[in-house]
Amino acid sequence: MSVTAAQGFSAAGIAAGIKESGQPDLALVVNRGPRRAAAGVFTSNRVKAAPVLWSEQVLKGGEVTAVVLNSGGANACTGPQGFQDTHATAEKAAEVLEGHSAGEIAVASTGLIGLPLPMDKLLPGVERAAAALSEHGGEKAAIAIRTTDTVHKTSVATRGGWTVGGMAKGAGMLAPGLATMLVVLTTDADVAAPALDSALRDATRTTFDRVDSDGCMSTNDTVLLLASGASGITPPGEEFDEAVRTVCADLARQLIGDAEGASKDIRIEVVNAATEDDAVEVGRSIARNNLLKCAIHGEDPNWGRVLSAIGTTKAAFEPDRLNVAINDVWVCRNGCVGDDRELVDMRYREVKITADLSAGTESAVIWANDLTAEYVHENSAYSS
Amino acid sequence: MSVTAAQGFSAAGIAAGIKESGQPDLALVVNRGPRRAAAGVFTSNRVKAAPVLWSEQVLKGGEVTAVVLNSGGANACTGPQGFQDTHATAEKAAEVLEGHSAGEIAVASTGLIGLPLPMDKLLPGVERAAAALSEHGGEKAAIAIRTTDTVHKTSVATRGGWTVGGMAKGAGMLAPGLATMLVVLTTDADVAAPALDSALRDATRTTFDRVDSDGCMSTNDTVLLLASGASGITPPGEEFDEAVRTVCADLARQLIGDAEGASKDIRIEVVNAATEDDAVEVGRSIARNNLLKCAIHGEDPNWGRVLSAIGTTKAAFEPDRLNVAINDVWVCRNGCVGDDRELVDMRYREVKITADLSAGTESAVIWANDLTAEYVHENSAYSS
Repeated sequence: MSVTAAQGFSAAGIAAGIKESGQPDLALVVNRGPRRAAAGVFTSNRVKAAPVLWSEQVLKGGEVTAVVLNSGGANACTGPQGFQDTHATAEKAAEVLEGHSAGEIAVASTGLIGLPLPMDKLLPGVERAAAALSEHGGEKAAIAIRTTDTVHKTSVATRGGWTVGGMAKGAGMLAPGLATMLVVLTTDADVAAPALDSALRDATRTTFDRVDSDGCMSTNDTVLLLASGASGITPPGEEFDEAVRTVCADLARQLIGDAEGASKDIRIEVVNAATEDDAVEVGRSIARNNLLKCAIHGEDPNWGRVLSAIGTTKAAFEPDRLNVAINDVWVCRNGCVGDDRELVDMRYREVKITADLSAGTESAVIWANDLTAEYVHENSAYSS
Repeated sequence: MSVTAAQGFSAAGIAAGIKESGQPDLALVVNRGPRRAAAGVFTSNRVKAAPVLWSEQVLKGGEVTAVVLNSGGANACTGPQGFQDTHATAEKAAEVLEGHSAGEIAVASTGLIGLPLPMDKLLPGVERAAAALSEHGGEKAAIAIRTTDTVHKTSVATRGGWTVGGMAKGAGMLAPGLATMLVVLTTDADVAAPALDSALRDATRTTFDRVDSDGCMSTNDTVLLLASGASGITPPGEEFDEAVRTVCADLARQLIGDAEGASKDIRIEVVNAATEDDAVEVGRSIARNNLLKCAIHGEDPNWGRVLSAIGTTKAAFEPDRLNVAINDVWVCRNGCVGDDRELVDMRYREVKITADLSAGTESAVIWANDLTAEYVHENSAYSS
């Protein structure tokens, strides 16, 4: 279903030869209208890949006709030539789709940083992808954007006569602002660009921005939302926001579940914080603590490392009022040893850490992964 | 030599039975005077162990007669009882040293968080350590403070008639402000407490505070500097500061060289920064990037991950003016691919990363380690 679950969209995913392995590496998503409203959120890394710089400009117009996505090369740190390559990609897509200009074509890339894209393969690939476009092509598009992902990720939310669907890739370098993720969401609801933008920012703030697999922020993160208006329905704002949030949350959870080398998915709930910002800061500090991530891997309910991570933040709290539960066992109460750590069952993939700051009523959830020898292997044995 | 290299000090290291392994676990360092001036720097973690809270109070008086240090237990997150245990330790030391009060005795602990110390073993241990005090006991004291350290760490700088010496422990949880490190420095120079404090802060700022093995900040970090005045010499301030800095730099380098599970020591030089703060921020961001740490482990000169880490900071720079060298080969020039990465030889333990921000004239050096399967194993297979 993916990006073609909503009416008015077609998509394709092909092997253009960008990846030496011959695996699918080029996706095309086309909005057939009648509307072409769009919104986008991009990495906050100041070292931005060429396609991010390009697509940020495209999105300023609030209209997107198509998105070209490639795996097999990030086109980041490639200088003026890299930007020209992105521009040429958009030009090629505009040409083959007929009647459109490059300024309506967003581009997204993922893969190794610092290498030029093989344009002699990519540009013919755009032609072939356009020829393969189908209203059932969403699955193939989702497959073509994978890098080290072991599965492709899609999600759909259908409401009263309209749908939000999407695809995502990302398996490492996941950290707020955003992860190394490429996400394309589509909807056939008739929603104008400003409302799309608001829905998308609201959704990413509490979903993709709260996924922190390994603390590393990418140069290429891109999340796009395209609206065709093909259902003829303009849903109430809150209802639309909820559907976008649901799809984003589902895709974000799938990203964490497929993080490179991970054996545990860690749900970090920070509760009773003075402010939501405090809750997020504490959650991220816990999520990024390598010693804790190792302990979780070893199924060791090491709450001391949680307290140690909380202690590095500026959040409001008193050390002797901190409580920590691991899988609902309150192993730390009032900053000291609490219930018997032997009661904690950590055999399952999902592990929940609850950090109670006893400082207010705000809360936040951050998702992280454990740190494993496999993560080290995947990220040391080859360039990515 | 260690803490007894300077005149006026005696020390001991014994096995008190705190560690189940029966290894040495209790050290005592005594300043025999004639002066007892002292300065201290402690963790900036807001979750502080009982001995840190205690010793911070002791140091406010500017005089320290003795330091009791134990491995085998951090006495952190142990509540009011933990503080009472630290107090009792200081009382016991004051009693056996005769003629002193607990308020002159600093205490430092390292080991697992959240467990009460076995006081029935620790207090008799203090008596036995006092009986074992020797002017040649520095080595044994350095051995007794080890936790997962594979070697003990000492350093001595002798100048014209006076000496600064010291010992350190720490092999993980090393991060600014400070590492999980216990350090005791001694000198026979006749220097008053304010000048000791200034020398120690200046030295730690550019040495221990710039060691970032795994980004994790401890609850117990303590660095103490004790001056006996036994040489009768008051050196010029700059000369004294330099000697303290030399010993701190040497000990900090030894800590990085013995970091848990590390196979590489990474010297990160950030140059041509607009401010020193910018240089330090960028250096730390590079030091904490797990993907880069994995790449260095794999001897992969992955400069894209360096740029990606720089891009997450607020430092002044333009992406297209960034240059990166790995072991002096400029693999990234002007934000793009530079010299051939095949020229980079990464076979040796020490790896140098130079990040040129092209934004000013300031610089900083941060030391880090690679990320290895052994690190994961050491920190997941047992509690620490």
